[in-house]
Amino acid sequence: MFHIFFALAFLLSTISHVSAIDFCVADLNATETLTGYPCKSPATVTVDDFVFSNLFPGKNNIFNFSFTSAIIDNFPAINGLGLSISRFDIEEGGVVPMHTHADATEVIVMLQGNLTAGFISSDSNTVFMKTLSDGNIMVLPKGLLHFALNVGKGKASAYVIFDSVKASVQLFDVALFGNNLDSSIVEKTTFLDLAQIQKLKGQFKGSG
Amino acid sequence: MFHIFFALAFLLSTISHVSAIDFCVADLNATETLTGYPCKSPATVTVDDFVFSNLFPGKNNIFNFSFTSAIIDNFPAINGLGLSISRFDIEEGGVVPMHTHADATEVIVMLQGNLTAGFISSDSNTVFMKTLSDGNIMVLPKGLLHFALNVGKGKASAYVIFDSVKASVQLFDVALFGNNLDSSIVEKTTFLDLAQIQKLKGQFKGSG
Amino acid sequence: MFHIFFALAFLLSTISHVSAIDFCVADLNATETLTGYPCKSPATVTVDDFVFSNLFPGKNNIFNFSFTSAIIDNFPAINGLGLSISRFDIEEGGVVPMHTHADATEVIVMLQGNLTAGFISSDSNTVFMKTLSDGNIMVLPKGLLHFALNVGKGKASAYVIFDSVKASVQLFDVALFGNNLDSSIVEKTTFLDLAQIQKLKGQFKGSG
Amino acid sequence: MFHIFFALAFLLSTISHVSAIDFCVADLNATETLTGYPCKSPATVTVDDFVFSNLFPGKNNIFNFSFTSAIIDNFPAINGLGLSISRFDIEEGGVVPMHTHADATEVIVMLQGNLTAGFISSDSNTVFMKTLSDGNIMVLPKGLLHFALNVGKGKASAYVIFDSVKASVQLFDVALFGNNLDSSIVEKTTFLDLAQIQKLKGQFKGSG
Amino acid sequence: MFHIFFALAFLLSTISHVSAIDFCVADLNATETLTGYPCKSPATVTVDDFVFSNLFPGKNNIFNFSFTSAIIDNFPAINGLGLSISRFDIEEGGVVPMHTHADATEVIVMLQGNLTAGFISSDSNTVFMKTLSDGNIMVLPKGLLHFALNVGKGKASAYVIFDSVKASVQLFDVALFGNNLDSSIVEKTTFLDLAQIQKLKGQFKGSG
Amino acid sequence: MFHIFFALAFLLSTISHVSAIDFCVADLNATETLTGYPCKSPATVTVDDFVFSNLFPGKNNIFNFSFTSAIIDNFPAINGLGLSISRFDIEEGGVVPMHTHADATEVIVMLQGNLTAGFISSDSNTVFMKTLSDGNIMVLPKGLLHFALNVGKGKASAYVIFDSVKASVQLFDVALFGNNLDSSIVEKTTFLDLAQIQKLKGQFKGSG
Repeated sequence: MFHIFFALAFLLSTISHVSAIDFCVADLNATETLTGYPCKSPATVTVDDFVFSNLFPGKNNIFNFSFTSAIIDNFPAINGLGLSISRFDIEEGGVVPMHTHADATEVIVMLQGNLTAGFISSDSNTVFMKTLSDGNIMVLPKGLLHFALNVGKGKASAYVIFDSVKASVQLFDVALFGNNLDSSIVEKTTFLDLAQIQKLKGQFKGSG
Repeated sequence: MFHIFFALAFLLSTISHVSAIDFCVADLNATETLTGYPCKSPATVTVDDFVFSNLFPGKNNIFNFSFTSAIIDNFPAINGLGLSISRFDIEEGGVVPMHTHADATEVIVMLQGNLTAGFISSDSNTVFMKTLSDGNIMVLPKGLLHFALNVGKGKASAYVIFDSVKASVQLFDVALFGNNLDSSIVEKTTFLDLAQIQKLKGQFKGSG
Repeated sequence: MFHIFFALAFLLSTISHVSAIDFCVADLNATETLTGYPCKSPATVTVDDFVFSNLFPGKNNIFNFSFTSAIIDNFPAINGLGLSISRFDIEEGGVVPMHTHADATEVIVMLQGNLTAGFISSDSNTVFMKTLSDGNIMVLPKGLLHFALNVGKGKASAYVIFDSVKASVQLFDVALFGNNLDSSIVEKTTFLDLAQIQKLKGQFKGSG
Repeated sequence: MFHIFFALAFLLSTISHVSAIDFCVADLNATETLTGYPCKSPATVTVDDFVFSNLFPGKNNIFNFSFTSAIIDNFPAINGLGLSISRFDIEEGGVVPMHTHADATEVIVMLQGNLTAGFISSDSNTVFMKTLSDGNIMVLPKGLLHFALNVGKGKASAYVIFDSVKASVQLFDVALFGNNLDSSIVEKTTFLDLAQIQKLKGQFKGSG
Repeated sequence: MFHIFFALAFLLSTISHVSAIDFCVADLNATETLTGYPCKSPATVTVDDFVFSNLFPGKNNIFNFSFTSAIIDNFPAINGLGLSISRFDIEEGGVVPMHTHADATEVIVMLQGNLTAGFISSDSNTVFMKTLSDGNIMVLPKGLLHFALNVGKGKASAYVIFDSVKASVQLFDVALFGNNLDSSIVEKTTFLDLAQIQKLKGQFKGSG
Repeated sequence: MFHIFFALAFLLSTISHVSAIDFCVADLNATETLTGYPCKSPATVTVDDFVFSNLFPGKNNIFNFSFTSAIIDNFPAINGLGLSISRFDIEEGGVVPMHTHADATEVIVMLQGNLTAGFISSDSNTVFMKTLSDGNIMVLPKGLLHFALNVGKGKASAYVIFDSVKASVQLFDVALFGNNLDSSIVEKTTFLDLAQIQKLKGQFKGSG
């Protein structure tokens, strides 16, 4: 008596064109736009498009922490969702150096250990800093300088959520000392001593 | 004395590239993005792109009502407009079954007859229900379960406006009983009796 | 065995603060913001907040048509919805004069009669014009000059949808001849003859 | 030689009015708007406004799982951020019943255990279902019916991220059987048997 | 000791796909969408993409003023920025005729001379008019009729900012008299005299 | 024959409530929200609300440049417009030190002199730098480190447009050395030498 064919068709009855309604999984082979990627054809989407399987600690970088990310480039289901998720694990005594995310607020969700995280407001130039442990969440507003230090015993681990499908990161040292920006311009625009600049240019492989 | 060539050209004088200013009629052959379709070349647009001609009652479906829609798939002028328009006509005693639109608020604009329409809030679990007639408008908030019944004499007809260029529809019965979702999962997650589930799976052509 | 109290509380269990989730019905006594009105307390909302009951033809205005509107000012349920609905009925031979809506695209949904509607693009200065009848919809893009004429027998009636909770309207004649804008400024900026300006200033009760 | 007073003042030098630049922490005592709460005065903001301290497993509800949330009502720093974070812990064999979030996509970030999560698309009525474990993330698109079952040994725990500062939840059983919606209307609009409806109305404390 | 390769790679370590983070310079050869152009490959972007070099006074048009624009068509770095910049220079006694920008608020930033600028509100039909000189800024709200007159000695020059990457312009005279819109329709919808219409159709090269 | 009263009233005929249509001038005495200020009552708005009169060079700051701004705090007409305008004048040899705007892209519109402006991308860590003169515009993308140097003879002057009604500014030196952030934390998170940090803390009046 009830025919699913008709039931399904009740809203869409006169229409044959296929378009995305429920989701717009990124077609990463297409060209990116200001709002994300064009949609993969709904007919080719499977459950695996909605699942990211490898949010595990990775290999430590030179700063003694690992950072693994589920972002638009490797998790196309978040196309248009406006958020991405990473995991970081910092060795005892390790540091996440001073940096900004130009396009994303960061939310730290602690998993284990003790992490002192802080950001510097631009309005009043205040340092907002707190030591976090499991069960704590901290919000670091978009675009402001921030940092973290593992101040406890053993690893400190956390999930990090950004309100962007792929957050940018601008590390203070890399930006100032890791490219060919002329040392005299760095000197004039930062008031750092030339010797200090040249020392860090050496460490961060910059020139100029 | 006045030259239209110069007049028209006053803002655009040094520029030869063609881009959309006044409208962005959908190029339905291009790939959809999160915000809609790329624009058809303005030079190929005619008045007929802005006119939809067939918002008439269609053939009744199994639920004893007809539903005709002017949506992005058949009315490319609404690209980016964030609304679409449908017409439905329910036979005397007919019902629009319990359903949701995940991505659209619905506005019913009555044409004739008497329709009892209702939605269920999630916040307080309240039923908001009213019997409508010609000259009445009712707003059904985005994503909430809602339904309608023709409680009067003769047909009930209405225009329906969605704040989406193509609203999704998830019918309770079709979603639960019209696919291959395992009956035991339906049972555990809905608390419905297995016999009831199997009966409706039969009616809605589901399996599992 | 199942307690609704617990069921309802599953997401919200530790929280007593009341905030709007399902809808934000306008509190019209509060001050408007760029995005609409603050929300009426959810506890005071009833089904009548979602229903507008009087979308009937009104009294004819001087242009020989009536215009009735369900907008944010008298239909607070559309707060944040980004659309509003009006009904207009034009007498045989009647005209909707040349005007713009600065903030809204207009969608005409015909009910009866024959209406010639048109708009003028800014890009190519083209007139897009069509005669509409029952079952026709026409889109008039935001901000462009447009007009309509009842070219059939008897009344022409339509619902009009705007993608704004309250569309502005700037009538050519009222804007130029219905205020105290100095006639010489009108003359210089429109190239109309002074005699023409003064004649229309008389008709539209302007001065200067 | 360098005076911080002047340095700080370089952009803002002629201005005494205080306004939010870096963040807009919610003033929960003010009236909510469509886009969130007005901003707390920046001068009263402290680091504790950016930290939520209690994302721990709570008391089990009737469905045998606990759910703890950091949302706008108890974590005002997420005002305008467009996301919130919860933690849920399901006992072995436990179930999160069929439900929708009208206004939020959900992202499950697994912590421990084995969870079978699924959603039903509206477009093709397909079930997208997967068994998840630690290190897995799954996206459940906005507004669609979904569910989860703990199918492993011991507890299954996860963080849940919503792209809303406070997601709504509409549980199928609570919405249909936990209020005063007339049983005959439920029957006509769901095709469930009256006996089934009355049985569940009993369990979920509904009437009518 | 510090390796820039690792430093740079700390956020992006497992990912090889290239996507835009910092900017989305328009690929003007691609098809425009509702939100702008797809992004040029970041690898091909140079500093010259961010610089527009020719915001100089141009050749006078028939209205005795010049208008030079840095818009999306010739300045692809503003893709998605939602603003564009023009320069206009009006000869002594010159006029910018009555017009609207359907999609953009205009901000006049005076450089030299004396300009009387005004707009007409739609709400109260009020003329908001002011004589401006160097150091003055005036905002002309989106979509409303406005005009300007050089009322001083010598040229009046200004930068004009629009909150659109390419503002439309609809000049009253061009729209009404510079196309093939039938004179009798102009007459009925503007209440202008037929002789006046025909005179201006002659001047603005219209027909009909 | 034509009555302006009726003409004006044609859209709004049945409605007495006052709401903003054409503009929403900020009521700076009300509490700011995420999207700006509530609207001043339209009845109290005058032309002077749309005009800012003092975009002139101000007093030089310690960095030897002046900066004057028309922002939401002193120019309420830009409420909701998403842009603000400043003027800066740098003495010969002067510098705008390294800084970021967390929430705004900057557009420099040169007026006189020669300015070398540059920004550092986060993606590839590239310096995008150019010497600008009158008639040049340069876009500096949101949130990235940037700087400028007057490299010519005499003053360099420019208008600066931000896509924010009040851009934040975070100066590198002020943020790191002008507050009470512990020197050892600065050392660990920036790799600067302690002596360098203490020297600059002295200059920028920081402590710790």
